[in-house]
Amino acid sequence: MFEPSGVAIVGVSAEGMGFGRGILLAIQQMGYAGGLYPVNPKGGTVAGLQIYESVASIPHTIDLGIIAVPAPHVPAAIEQCLYKGAAGVEILSAGFRETDTPAGIDLEKKVRGLAQGGIRVVGPNCFGIYNPRTGLTLLPGPDLSREPGPVAFISQSGGMPVDFAHVGKWRGIRFSTMVSFGNGADLRETELLDYFLHDAETGVIAMYIEGLDDGRRFFSILKQVTARKPVIICKGGMSESGMRAAMSHTASIAGASEVWKAVIRQCNAVLATDLNDICNYSLAFSMLPRARYRGISLIGGGGAIGVAAADMAAEYGMLIPELDPEIQQEINPLLPQPGSSAKNPVDVANPFVPPANLQKILVATARSRDVDIQIVVQLLYHYKSLSIQMPGRTVMDITPIHDFAEAFSSAAASTGKPVIVVLPEYKQEIEALDIAEMIRTARKLYTEKGIPVYSDVKEALRSINVISNYQSRLLTRD
Amino acid sequence: MFEPSGVAIVGVSAEGMGFGRGILLAIQQMGYAGGLYPVNPKGGTVAGLQIYESVASIPHTIDLGIIAVPAPHVPAAIEQCLYKGAAGVEILSAGFRETDTPAGIDLEKKVRGLAQGGIRVVGPNCFGIYNPRTGLTLLPGPDLSREPGPVAFISQSGGMPVDFAHVGKWRGIRFSTMVSFGNGADLRETELLDYFLHDAETGVIAMYIEGLDDGRRFFSILKQVTARKPVIICKGGMSESGMRAAMSHTASIAGASEVWKAVIRQCNAVLATDLNDICNYSLAFSMLPRARYRGISLIGGGGAIGVAAADMAAEYGMLIPELDPEIQQEINPLLPQPGSSAKNPVDVANPFVPPANLQKILVATARSRDVDIQIVVQLLYHYKSLSIQMPGRTVMDITPIHDFAEAFSSAAASTGKPVIVVLPEYKQEIEALDIAEMIRTARKLYTEKGIPVYSDVKEALRSINVISNYQSRLLTRD
Repeated sequence: MFEPSGVAIVGVSAEGMGFGRGILLAIQQMGYAGGLYPVNPKGGTVAGLQIYESVASIPHTIDLGIIAVPAPHVPAAIEQCLYKGAAGVEILSAGFRETDTPAGIDLEKKVRGLAQGGIRVVGPNCFGIYNPRTGLTLLPGPDLSREPGPVAFISQSGGMPVDFAHVGKWRGIRFSTMVSFGNGADLRETELLDYFLHDAETGVIAMYIEGLDDGRRFFSILKQVTARKPVIICKGGMSESGMRAAMSHTASIAGASEVWKAVIRQCNAVLATDLNDICNYSLAFSMLPRARYRGISLIGGGGAIGVAAADMAAEYGMLIPELDPEIQQEINPLLPQPGSSAKNPVDVANPFVPPANLQKILVATARSRDVDIQIVVQLLYHYKSLSIQMPGRTVMDITPIHDFAEAFSSAAASTGKPVIVVLPEYKQEIEALDIAEMIRTARKLYTEKGIPVYSDVKEALRSINVISNYQSRLLTRD
Repeated sequence: MFEPSGVAIVGVSAEGMGFGRGILLAIQQMGYAGGLYPVNPKGGTVAGLQIYESVASIPHTIDLGIIAVPAPHVPAAIEQCLYKGAAGVEILSAGFRETDTPAGIDLEKKVRGLAQGGIRVVGPNCFGIYNPRTGLTLLPGPDLSREPGPVAFISQSGGMPVDFAHVGKWRGIRFSTMVSFGNGADLRETELLDYFLHDAETGVIAMYIEGLDDGRRFFSILKQVTARKPVIICKGGMSESGMRAAMSHTASIAGASEVWKAVIRQCNAVLATDLNDICNYSLAFSMLPRARYRGISLIGGGGAIGVAAADMAAEYGMLIPELDPEIQQEINPLLPQPGSSAKNPVDVANPFVPPANLQKILVATARSRDVDIQIVVQLLYHYKSLSIQMPGRTVMDITPIHDFAEAFSSAAASTGKPVIVVLPEYKQEIEALDIAEMIRTARKLYTEKGIPVYSDVKEALRSINVISNYQSRLLTRD
């Protein structure tokens, strides 16, 4: 059902802004190549497609039914898909257990009963499935990436996978499959986790969970999974008011915060507090080798950023070690004098260090046995003031981002020590869209070469630390 | 010297990229209205101005000398300014105590000696003074805001005030004066702090400190200041490697982390770990009333964001309380059904809630006695998919940001309960510059109406908490 060759969409009106029509248009725009069959008793056409009056009347095979009819009509729609032989359905409609009404609870029981009759159900009250390979997308779609990659996302929430997919697109995080399971009447966290353990395409699993169906089983599977693949868990509903919010959101009874934190740690899963954490850690696990990183070289950004980075690294049990005098001597001629420092942090004292020099510095610092990973902080916005002095030249023209990308990936490849780039965006006024365009292009070029990009040193350090901790506990456990 | 009517810039070459020429052009571009007198023994002209051969030969009064000659020539330049009757100098040049060489240390002693002879010195190894009212700017300038405001910044670092000034510009943080004091041979943290206590324009003081000249005196003044104005302190060099970095950066001997944290807390100052914290807290103190905030209403953003916010609020000792049934009944008709929740977090279940409805919701939630402050989370990027369906309309056209700005400020004014807006930027691919432009415009409109904007719920909550804590301790102390 994640890679269907035929999809029925039940509840598509020819006009208007309904969920059914929305998801149909989104999947079309994504370029899904399989058969797409809208269903509505009224018939008609939509987006160049015939609307079938029922699922039964579709003269093709259906693997997946997408259901977007009002809640009371959902059981009948599932039955239609079941008789048609679909492997599964996703139910976008809300109005079930999360309403906390007898009618809603009863409807959800019916859905669960149908699922036991031989069809798998994602939802209800969800935004569906995103699979870049086939072109299935989440509601509201439609401009998610078609490039597949190693990150799977299992989410009780509908909104978070949509946001994550959008952020992933520009941060260079690529996905195998995302499943928004909402109330989770049938398929949910544990079974999906087990599925992605065995999915060859998936290398990293992220989850957003509000409540568990079967805690014991979940944690038992989780432990098995983390022995092979890192699992990032964002747990919603840790607090009393968070629990209440989770109840109205996906009808989940969330457990006590301390228990969760302890068990996640015991299972060597990674705890994330919000989408930002999920993105940062997914990116790190996608692009950086799994290793224990202790020593860091930090190059660029200016003195205060270096000092703050050293402090933050220390809080995470990492170190920005002073470089050997020979290495410092090698770096010093590459830096402007005075005002710079080759000690580590390497304070370049000038935002316009040429790419070739940066590469030489990275190669030299990598020779230190105390350096495991390298962070370059680039305040690229300064090129704007340079461009102002060069009539007819834009900031995009004069910032050597292609050469930087090449320099970073060459240095990482030749030294075997990963390079991370931090690109803070200190200029975000309306007039500075040219700077935004340049920085976004730089981020794209860097990440395409496997160099992870963060916008903040703290986030880069925290993400490195997450990998280190995962790897340490993995080795301790074995 | 912060608001001079005549400025000599010593060390300006007619050509090239030197510091002296750079700061001259920057101050010119800022629109500084006083007299600007470049000095260089070679004479000539630069940027339409005559270059004087010495400070003595300037036929006008000088209040401030900006010194950008190589370190060995700095003492003579100070003497020239002293004889000319300037109140002070700022020394941009590096090559003093921070080099840890006998020559550098000796030069700095000379600077200190001259300062005792009747002229105040900012620097050396600094980026100078930024004063929006007069148009003085930091190196490298030049496009900082000319709008003055309540935030003063005292910084041992040169780079951080530049970055802070740039971020402040688009985040709506306005400055009274920034002083980058570098090695701090004369004027430094304690005296500047005392100065801003008495500066009527300054309401919030932020500081970046690596080391203190006289700890006892500093903390005694700090305690006096926080009784009247909040002080945000970012302390660089908390860790061993951070201390080493601080030594090469501004020649500071940084103290033990625990001592700092304890004393900052005792003095009721606010600890910031990086520039991001400084910006977040400065914005909050600039725009929000100083009060104890406990109950928060959270509107919009989607279910998972609400759940996560409730959890984070709880971690800070705050609460997202369930609303009274009557208030829920009032809000419910304003929300799409099903899928929404009026309990708080108010899950609007649809990113296109009209401004008038949002305003009504804010007015209703404010009636709850348990709500002290309101947070609206807007995922404005969704308007892009709406604009795609409306040929000829841009995302800027169709997103009612002017009406939102009006709705938020009206609701805040009529209820007396502050409104904060969170504008996450989940779409930052190169192609989405239109969304960036719209969100940046929204941020500008909101902040111009006194509504602080954050890009992340966590940062908004942390900033609210900082104000609450400051206020609580202030009241406890009195």
